[in-house]
Amino acid sequence: MRTLKLTLAYDGTNYVGWQRQENGLAVQQVLEEALQPMCGDRVPVLMGAGRTDAGVHATEQVASVRVSFDHAASAVHRALNVRLPRDIRVLAVEDADPRFHARFDATGKSYRYRIATDRVPLPFDRWFVWQMAQPCDIDSMRAAAGALLGRHDFTSFQARDSAVLDGWRTLERVHVERVGSEIQIEVDGDGFLRHMVRIIVGTLVDIGVGNRAVDSMASALAARDRQAAGRTAPAQGLTLVKIRY
Amino acid sequence: MRTLKLTLAYDGTNYVGWQRQENGLAVQQVLEEALQPMCGDRVPVLMGAGRTDAGVHATEQVASVRVSFDHAASAVHRALNVRLPRDIRVLAVEDADPRFHARFDATGKSYRYRIATDRVPLPFDRWFVWQMAQPCDIDSMRAAAGALLGRHDFTSFQARDSAVLDGWRTLERVHVERVGSEIQIEVDGDGFLRHMVRIIVGTLVDIGVGNRAVDSMASALAARDRQAAGRTAPAQGLTLVKIRY
Repeated sequence: MRTLKLTLAYDGTNYVGWQRQENGLAVQQVLEEALQPMCGDRVPVLMGAGRTDAGVHATEQVASVRVSFDHAASAVHRALNVRLPRDIRVLAVEDADPRFHARFDATGKSYRYRIATDRVPLPFDRWFVWQMAQPCDIDSMRAAAGALLGRHDFTSFQARDSAVLDGWRTLERVHVERVGSEIQIEVDGDGFLRHMVRIIVGTLVDIGVGNRAVDSMASALAARDRQAAGRTAPAQGLTLVKIRY
Repeated sequence: MRTLKLTLAYDGTNYVGWQRQENGLAVQQVLEEALQPMCGDRVPVLMGAGRTDAGVHATEQVASVRVSFDHAASAVHRALNVRLPRDIRVLAVEDADPRFHARFDATGKSYRYRIATDRVPLPFDRWFVWQMAQPCDIDSMRAAAGALLGRHDFTSFQARDSAVLDGWRTLERVHVERVGSEIQIEVDGDGFLRHMVRIIVGTLVDIGVGNRAVDSMASALAARDRQAAGRTAPAQGLTLVKIRY
């Protein structure tokens, strides 16, 4: 058996997310079906580093898959891009250590969240931004973001229906900046709970628009209770941008 | 009667173009239907400055419309954006001189054409670029573009089915530049024939990839024959960016 490492980009708009689900088409499924003709009777199972939600995008997702065929990595790369729809692209296929596992071996991930602040938002990026007409104070957002850095129990920033019990994660960077008419928030960490980036962004925006105090970020974190944090920002503004190994 | 000047942006992907047609939904029609409830029994007729083709986009289209209602321009602006789909946005509504006509009064227009040159194109801009995997020599394209500047009969650069007989137009600027991994071509002129920008871009690309000589641009222009020019670049890479008055 051989292990391939796939680097992927996708527009998540038309998918139920990375992971196979009963209720619609997942990115994982589309990729597995594109890989199937090379695998004969074996059913390929892709392990994605980040299990992105419905509507979340990726400029650099990584997946691993164990295969028994002999096709060169470059041939697999070309064949996949011919078969895949245009909203999923394979950027690279490489032979990896046979024990490589895209999710378990990842040491860090980076996400970017885009908020469009134009009074009348341009139509072109409408599937890739959260359109926020209310003025947002970026300095308050930055001040509040500081409280999240380091190792904490992020249970307050986890979707209520999550089954994960250990909420301890390390955030290495939360960067809030203005890029043209957008606010962009970049978050780097060793791992993320379900909806964690979206709840962090939603809470930062609640603070930016003046619905919450800057110091409420620290108390939200200390509460270990989802109700103590702010709203969940919409999925479409979020993009997985990097997996570190 | 009053004349309103509307400034518009749209993603043209899902439309048959600016102008009403039998075979599908046009941007003009969607805007007229959004304006209708304010117009009572009168049917509003929008005059667009640029009659963009199916799949062509606009960051700044201008349209004029004669109305008899008294609603403030700002109220019309808000009402239209509430009613319109998200791929069409009204950027401004102003009261204009009653004789203002968006098309006949325009003194110039600017278009931008985007060519993506990544070996594996990212999925995010797939409706807004022409994906061109062949390497393109930008210096040859620039040299060839020079022949187009000034006042010429552009009959060679007009769609065969066009009914326009006078092919004389003035091109003020043809700018070819590399922007990240893209080639962008900006064209400013006093007016454009049907498919003119797309045939200019197609011919420049034919030259850039080495299928035509640099000096064939001047001979194509002199021939006054569509067959003397190159291919028609796909609509989706084209955006109307400015109307001058």
